[in-house]
Amino acid sequence: MKVLLAQLNPTIGDLEGNTKKVLHSMEIAREKGVDLIVFPEMTLCGYTPEDLLFSQRFIDDMEECLDQIVRASKGVALLVGMIRRNPMREEKLLYNSAAVISDGMLLGFYDKILLPHYDVFNERRYFSEGRSVQVWNIKGVRVAVVICEDMWQNASHVSNTTYVRDPVKELVSYRPDILCNLTASPFQAQKGEVRVEVCRAAAKTLNCPVVYSCQVGANGMLIFDGYSMVVDKDGTLLALAKGFEEDFMTVDIPSKGVPAKFEPDVKKDVYRALCLGVSDYFAKANQKKAVIGLSGGIDSALVASIAKDALGKENVLGIYMPSRFSSKEGYEDAKKLAENLGIEFKTISIEPMFELYLETLKEHFPDEDFDITEENLQARIRGVMLMAFANKMKMLLLNTGDKSEFALGYCTLYGDMCGALSVIGDVLKTDVYELCKYVNREREIIPQRIFDKPPSPELRHHHKATDTLPPYPIVDVVLKAYIEAQQPIDVIAKQYNIDYNIVYSIIERIYKAEHKMRQAPPALRVSGRALTIGRRKPLHHTGRHTVY
Amino acid sequence: MKVLLAQLNPTIGDLEGNTKKVLHSMEIAREKGVDLIVFPEMTLCGYTPEDLLFSQRFIDDMEECLDQIVRASKGVALLVGMIRRNPMREEKLLYNSAAVISDGMLLGFYDKILLPHYDVFNERRYFSEGRSVQVWNIKGVRVAVVICEDMWQNASHVSNTTYVRDPVKELVSYRPDILCNLTASPFQAQKGEVRVEVCRAAAKTLNCPVVYSCQVGANGMLIFDGYSMVVDKDGTLLALAKGFEEDFMTVDIPSKGVPAKFEPDVKKDVYRALCLGVSDYFAKANQKKAVIGLSGGIDSALVASIAKDALGKENVLGIYMPSRFSSKEGYEDAKKLAENLGIEFKTISIEPMFELYLETLKEHFPDEDFDITEENLQARIRGVMLMAFANKMKMLLLNTGDKSEFALGYCTLYGDMCGALSVIGDVLKTDVYELCKYVNREREIIPQRIFDKPPSPELRHHHKATDTLPPYPIVDVVLKAYIEAQQPIDVIAKQYNIDYNIVYSIIERIYKAEHKMRQAPPALRVSGRALTIGRRKPLHHTGRHTVY
Repeated sequence: MKVLLAQLNPTIGDLEGNTKKVLHSMEIAREKGVDLIVFPEMTLCGYTPEDLLFSQRFIDDMEECLDQIVRASKGVALLVGMIRRNPMREEKLLYNSAAVISDGMLLGFYDKILLPHYDVFNERRYFSEGRSVQVWNIKGVRVAVVICEDMWQNASHVSNTTYVRDPVKELVSYRPDILCNLTASPFQAQKGEVRVEVCRAAAKTLNCPVVYSCQVGANGMLIFDGYSMVVDKDGTLLALAKGFEEDFMTVDIPSKGVPAKFEPDVKKDVYRALCLGVSDYFAKANQKKAVIGLSGGIDSALVASIAKDALGKENVLGIYMPSRFSSKEGYEDAKKLAENLGIEFKTISIEPMFELYLETLKEHFPDEDFDITEENLQARIRGVMLMAFANKMKMLLLNTGDKSEFALGYCTLYGDMCGALSVIGDVLKTDVYELCKYVNREREIIPQRIFDKPPSPELRHHHKATDTLPPYPIVDVVLKAYIEAQQPIDVIAKQYNIDYNIVYSIIERIYKAEHKMRQAPPALRVSGRALTIGRRKPLHHTGRHTVY
Repeated sequence: MKVLLAQLNPTIGDLEGNTKKVLHSMEIAREKGVDLIVFPEMTLCGYTPEDLLFSQRFIDDMEECLDQIVRASKGVALLVGMIRRNPMREEKLLYNSAAVISDGMLLGFYDKILLPHYDVFNERRYFSEGRSVQVWNIKGVRVAVVICEDMWQNASHVSNTTYVRDPVKELVSYRPDILCNLTASPFQAQKGEVRVEVCRAAAKTLNCPVVYSCQVGANGMLIFDGYSMVVDKDGTLLALAKGFEEDFMTVDIPSKGVPAKFEPDVKKDVYRALCLGVSDYFAKANQKKAVIGLSGGIDSALVASIAKDALGKENVLGIYMPSRFSSKEGYEDAKKLAENLGIEFKTISIEPMFELYLETLKEHFPDEDFDITEENLQARIRGVMLMAFANKMKMLLLNTGDKSEFALGYCTLYGDMCGALSVIGDVLKTDVYELCKYVNREREIIPQRIFDKPPSPELRHHHKATDTLPPYPIVDVVLKAYIEAQQPIDVIAKQYNIDYNIVYSIIERIYKAEHKMRQAPPALRVSGRALTIGRRKPLHHTGRHTVY
């Protein structure tokens, strides 16, 4: 059987556009003499339309698209991810389904059984659990169908949940010849290896090859990296599709080719994920140009590089905005960076505005002490300036804050927290340095001095991040352990040999910054636990232990 | 049997403080010779600790609090809402439970069966479904226990869900003498009547009285209004606790007293809800003082009145910030309002800053056309100014935007969208007028001219909201039908006799404003569907119909 894995990049809600992609895939399939096309999960609507799913009209339109696809399916079989109504009307009113279509006929549906409900997933809000597994006879081959999470319980790779059912095990008695999984699995660093393991576990349980067709592209904060694959019944990786772009991969099953190799490169993958996140954000919002505040620091250097790679240098404007506290080096570094990237560069001093605000506020304030107020003021004047450019020039402002800053609240609401999209809001500061090294892998694009100087917001004289924070290498170890691995404070202190009070103070800052996170720009998710999606903390709470 | 309904106001995560409230309630119970105390849902942790629940230490601490309560329960029985571990470790690892305690003994737990998962509720993220109902013998009385949602399927009052199980029906064969419901039901206008109906339905199904103990107080965006009640087996309302404050209500069952009356007053309830939302937000965040931008318009007038009632006039600062487009009337009205409320009032012109920004930007902009850029600039200068006061004076900025403006995106990100809390972000403009009339019910606090003049942001000459928007009475009908009742566009046009294109244009604005809503301040929820909680739309999508 010749199988086509149609690794598509659907747009959320664009039923018509996504349907066109499916129809186009059928043409490719016919040209290549393909027997079965396997599409990703929710191909017709994109992952995920969220509350759009409550619109009856939206579901009606999706059914219409399905009809169109069925009518066009002469001579080929396909599995298409979509949403359908739950005819039983029990629990929720919808199913997350795969339409099974062959040669102009809708054979039926498979409805997803394991509905992830943790982290960024909220499928129980919309979907009922599928009733049962089934095997479909397609050209004499016994084809089993599951959807994404359905395969993960079998490999014991589920967080905060232990499903009672295991659809892969339920399939054992059906003795399928091939298992097809329609997937939309959001990118996160090093998740690729886990997916291979999950496919292998299912292949071994069922003693049959697994066809794993993945969504690609970014929708909002979630990035889908692709890397669809076929794993043989003995666990051999038979074929691997491209990462971070659409791909049409045909595989003969059983395969006669040489095994594929999965050689993940974490830095490169994260960098490509962020580029895809930016380019798809702009494409799907129908936007072209970006404006970025360049400070001469490491964060804005990385964001500018990503923006240039994602949007083209002609579509990026960098603005350097010094105040009395800005260093000559900052200016030189920002300018050099812009030159190296070939992006437009402007310098606008905020000093006159800063002075005028101070003058205006003086009579209302009790004293002339310089505190967080005056620091924030500078960040906010810059935010206002950048937004003026965004509005006037029809650009989107890209936020340049990193995850370490956001987590600790080491950032100014309505100041450096402005932006339509936070590009590196899920990248820890130490990883920002690593990604910048990746940018410089062939030649110096980000000036070396940006790596060498200590991080500083330059909001007061001789300002260093370490004035109020522990060094970032310590901060980041704690953040990773606490936010991603969800380890308790005492365990972190012990495991990483960091003073308990330092660990506590870092985590306490996370709690105190929660109100800021509520108004943070949406951040591209690349880690196991992001701050602005998939993590829900109360706005404020007090307790015996303020911090858990 | 003498029952005490302990209508408490817990703080999220404050296990120690909440436990003290439970212990204190026991003292009251003993004084009054009470047999059974019924506490609200999640009394020990507040509704809802969200991902704090993933902390093992948090659950351990809660168990410790329970031990303390059990040990102190000599001579009295109680039902306490809390979270416990799911010993089966199937599906999710926790139960939303009621501890059943009598005379120093933990008799066991009832685990919530119906886990709401729609609107603002996400209980499936944390909890497994309880296995079965049960009846407990407490002082010879057969006491059945359920938790909140458990009773709603029986009354067919559930949205977007049809539960397969109905715990009230499951209880029929147990023939309870009394049904106790531990509840945390968020306030929304006119929900009180529905709750009475839900209690009546259960009382009739089981032919026994229903004791309905409700949480009170605000936690973040959710406000709990209290109004605990007891309904007799024939549906008679036997007793009704206070609204919007803690209350300890004792009721003899069967009752010998006169029936209670539930006489809801929508305007008054919404106003009190918003006051409670503000006062609890400040109390639980350990804050005292508020700053508000006063424009002389209706929205900021209402927010200032609420702030004064919630925090005391000595804790509210109103700042009027005119530009070249501001009217004399605006100033007079803002000043008069502040005088009437007795709050501190300042005037600070933004004109010098506005001029300086324009001057600075001139050389960078292609022409001197006045567009949305310059409008937003004014709003943002005001935002920066207000935040400077908030930072310097240790105040929280209260946002003054209303739901109609937010929904339509008729507001400026990082400008008038600044604020720690949006007080009326879930109140439609036409309802803002109604609430202002309520404020003026006894004497003119909000100057009459504020009601009479047409709404204007005063960001350009002769600026009226109707320059770009349909009149608010039309806007609000559409918003209510679309957002709350979730009616489709064509139905709205027909039902309310509004031109289809006008309806479409209003709803299209909602979609286009989604990116703003992602960075909006958390808004107190008082309607059936708020914008900043319980509603999830994709950031942007394109499609055959842009709008559903």
